[in-house]
Amino acid sequence: MFGRTRSRQLLPPALRHSLSTASGSGVRINSGRLLETLHQTCEWGSAHRYGDGPTETGMARLCLTDEDAKVRRWLREEVEKLGCTVTVDQMGNMFARQQGSLGSSAPMTAMGSHLDTQPRGGRYDGILGVLAGLEVLRTMKENGFRTAFDIGWSTGPNLSKNSEEGARPKSMCSSGVWAGAPPRERLGVDGHFQPGPTLRSELERHGLLGPVACSHDPAAGYPLGAHFELHIEQGPILEEAGKSVGVVRGAQGYRWLTITVGGRDAHTGTTPLAARRDPVLAASKMIVASNAIAKRHGALASTGVVKLPRTASTNTVASEVSFTLDIRHPRDRVVHAVQDECLQAFAEIAREDGRGVTLDWTLDTDSAAVEFDEGCIAAVRDAATGLVGEDQWMELTSGAGHDSVYTSRHCPTAMIFVPCKGGVSHHPEEYCSPTQW
Amino acid sequence: MFGRTRSRQLLPPALRHSLSTASGSGVRINSGRLLETLHQTCEWGSAHRYGDGPTETGMARLCLTDEDAKVRRWLREEVEKLGCTVTVDQMGNMFARQQGSLGSSAPMTAMGSHLDTQPRGGRYDGILGVLAGLEVLRTMKENGFRTAFDIGWSTGPNLSKNSEEGARPKSMCSSGVWAGAPPRERLGVDGHFQPGPTLRSELERHGLLGPVACSHDPAAGYPLGAHFELHIEQGPILEEAGKSVGVVRGAQGYRWLTITVGGRDAHTGTTPLAARRDPVLAASKMIVASNAIAKRHGALASTGVVKLPRTASTNTVASEVSFTLDIRHPRDRVVHAVQDECLQAFAEIAREDGRGVTLDWTLDTDSAAVEFDEGCIAAVRDAATGLVGEDQWMELTSGAGHDSVYTSRHCPTAMIFVPCKGGVSHHPEEYCSPTQW
Repeated sequence: MFGRTRSRQLLPPALRHSLSTASGSGVRINSGRLLETLHQTCEWGSAHRYGDGPTETGMARLCLTDEDAKVRRWLREEVEKLGCTVTVDQMGNMFARQQGSLGSSAPMTAMGSHLDTQPRGGRYDGILGVLAGLEVLRTMKENGFRTAFDIGWSTGPNLSKNSEEGARPKSMCSSGVWAGAPPRERLGVDGHFQPGPTLRSELERHGLLGPVACSHDPAAGYPLGAHFELHIEQGPILEEAGKSVGVVRGAQGYRWLTITVGGRDAHTGTTPLAARRDPVLAASKMIVASNAIAKRHGALASTGVVKLPRTASTNTVASEVSFTLDIRHPRDRVVHAVQDECLQAFAEIAREDGRGVTLDWTLDTDSAAVEFDEGCIAAVRDAATGLVGEDQWMELTSGAGHDSVYTSRHCPTAMIFVPCKGGVSHHPEEYCSPTQW
Repeated sequence: MFGRTRSRQLLPPALRHSLSTASGSGVRINSGRLLETLHQTCEWGSAHRYGDGPTETGMARLCLTDEDAKVRRWLREEVEKLGCTVTVDQMGNMFARQQGSLGSSAPMTAMGSHLDTQPRGGRYDGILGVLAGLEVLRTMKENGFRTAFDIGWSTGPNLSKNSEEGARPKSMCSSGVWAGAPPRERLGVDGHFQPGPTLRSELERHGLLGPVACSHDPAAGYPLGAHFELHIEQGPILEEAGKSVGVVRGAQGYRWLTITVGGRDAHTGTTPLAARRDPVLAASKMIVASNAIAKRHGALASTGVVKLPRTASTNTVASEVSFTLDIRHPRDRVVHAVQDECLQAFAEIAREDGRGVTLDWTLDTDSAAVEFDEGCIAAVRDAATGLVGEDQWMELTSGAGHDSVYTSRHCPTAMIFVPCKGGVSHHPEEYCSPTQW
C-alpha cells in the first residue's frame, strides 16, 4: 500500500491500522460550528475591511503579536476542555493529544496548520486547517468516538518573515526547526543578528515558550506518527475544474532570495545619466529580466518586496535598493536553473548600467520540491471518494510552501486542499465556502 | 544693458544704479568666519557621519523640524544684531533688510537660498547661500560699508516634499507661494487634504508664522527689487573645467510626477504569471521604459522613490506600487515630449502585462525652464571677472530647481555657482572648498 520505502519504515502501526481499515467512521463534523468558531476567533486580528458584513474583513494576525497570542491561548483552553494533553516546545509549537483506546505510546497522528496570517491576509489560509482539527476533536468527543491510537493537532508560529518588526524569523520557522532545517541559529530566534524582539522573547512575553526541545527526535522532542494538513488551495485549479477536494501529491520547490543593489545618491537634475550609479533603474531591469527568465522555463519568479532607504526622495538617485525574488517550480533543477540565469543576468545589468552598481544577494529560504507519502495520499483519496465521490476530487501539486513540507521529512504526510473563491489568497477577500467542508 | 523687456521694467532704480557703477566695493568677506558659521550652525541637524573629523557628517535638517527651527531663530537674532529689520510672512519666509544710505522705499536687493536640507543631504546645498548672505551683511557692518539702496537676505521653508511626515508640502514651497505659483491651496499648507501636521501648524508650533501675506505683491506682501542666489553647482561641470565661478544663465525645466500602479495581491506560489495583476513587475517595466525614452531625447528621467504597501511580503504579489518620475531638460517642449511618451508607454505596459494593472498619475511639480535676467547675469559676470579673472568663470544652466526660479518671475534674478567636489550633492559627503568663496 505504501509506495515509498522511507515512509513505510516511518509509518507507525497506529496509522497503518487506521488507513487499512477505516472506510469512514460515519461520523461527520459540524461545519456550521466550524464556521462559527473560525469567524469568532478571527475577531483576534481582523483587519482590511472590504464589505459591510460582520465577517467581511481580512486578517492581520502576525506571528506572536498580542492578537496571535490570544487565539493560541484560547485554543489551548478549548482542547484541554476536550480532554487533550497539551505540550508546547521551545519554538512555540503546540501539540494537543487525545489518547487513543489502546493507550499506546506510539507518536500521534496530527492534523496541523498555522494560526498566524500574512500582514494583509484572509480568514482561511492556515486558520481553517487548525480549526478543522479542533472540529474533528470536538466531533469525536460529542459522538463518543475514539481512535485506537493517539490523535491530535499541532500548530506553531509560521508566517513571520515579513513582519514589520524584522527580528521575527522566517516562514514556517517552527515546523522548520522541528524538522531540523534550517538550524535554529540561522533563524535569529535568540536575536544573535538583530536588535529588537526575538521569537524567543516574544514567546516568553506571551507565556507561550514551552519546555520541550523543538525537534522530531523521539529522544528529546515531540515526534509525530503522521501529519495531515487541510488547507485552502490558494489557486484557481479546483474551482475551475469544478472539484471540491484536492488530493495533494506534493509541493513545488522554491527559493527565496534577497537582492541588494548598491548605487550612489546624487542629484537627479545635475547628474548625467551616464555618470550615475542608479540602483532603482538597475533593480527594475533585474525584476523585468527575472520575469522573462522564469517565463522561458515555465517557472514562477516574483518580486513582492522592494525596499529603498527611508531617505529616498524624488530628486535624488537612491543609494541602495533591495528586493525579494521568489522562484518556484515542481522540479528542483528548474528552480536552480532559473536562479543561476537570474544571477547571471543581474550581474550583467549591474556592470552595464551608467557607472555600474554593486550587487549582493542572500538565499533566505530553500525549500526543495516534496513528494508526500503514498500511503497518506491514498488515505486522503479513499476518504474523499467516500465523502464526495470519485468525480469530485483531483490530484494536485501545491504551489505554496506549507508546514507539511517540513513534517514530511520525518513522518508520513499528506495534504487536503479545498477550493477558494477565484483562487484568491494572501488577500483580505480570500474565501472558502463552508459547503466544501 | 538689460536684454529682457519684463526685467527692465521690473528693475528698480536702486539696482540699476548699483549694477552700472559698482565695479567692486574693494571689500572682501571673511571666508574663515563663513566656514566657521556654516559648521557651527550645521550642528543643528547633522547626520550621516562618513568620517572621523568633527565636520565629516552630512545633514538631515528637514523643513520645520525642531533643528530647522533652531537655526532659523538663531539667524534672526544674528541679523537683528547687525541692525537689520526682520519680516516674516505667512509661509515662514524670513526677510532681513539693511537700510541703504538713501533711505529709499524701493524694494531691497536680496541674497537668498534655503536652510533646510534633504533627508540625506550635505552641508552646502542651500545653507552656503544663506550664510554667504549673512557674511556679506557682517562684512558690511564691520567695514562701515553701506549700500545706497536697501539690501538683505531672504530664506524660507524649501525642501519639504519628501519628509517622512508626508503632510509637509512641496519643494521650494514658500518661494513658490511668494511667486504666486503653485497656489497655496494646492500645497495643502493648511492641511485640507492630509491629516497630521501642516506647514502652518508647524510654523505656529515654532513661533515662525509671520503676519505678512506671502506674496511678491507690493500692496500686500514683501516684494524684492532683485534676487541673487549663491549655490553649489551640484554637478561636475565647473570642477571638470577647472573654473571657480559659474555664471548661471537659467535653469532647466522639470516636471515631477507620481505614478500609481494598482494590481491585485495574490499568492506568488499558486498564481500563474498569466493570471496576475502584478504592479511591481509593471512599475519596473515603466521605470526601464522612462529611462530609454529620456535617453532618446537627451533628457533626464529619474525615479528616486518607489513605495509599496507596508504589508508587502516575499510570497505575495503586491496590491499597489507608486513611484516618482522626475523629467528634466533645458527646453520645456522636450520635457513635455518625454512626459507624453512615458505616459503612453506606461499605458501600454499596464494593458499588456498579465491580466493588466491600473495606472494613475499626478503632476506634483511643474517648473518651466527659466532664463535669468540679463542685467543680473552681467552683474555676476563683471563681479566674477573682477574677483577671479576672465578665465576662471564660465556660463552654466542650472540642472536643479532653486528658489531663484520663482523669484525670477517677479524680480530680476541671477545665480552664482561654486564648484562642489566630484559634482556630488544630495549626499552627506557633498563638499565645497572655502578657497572658492
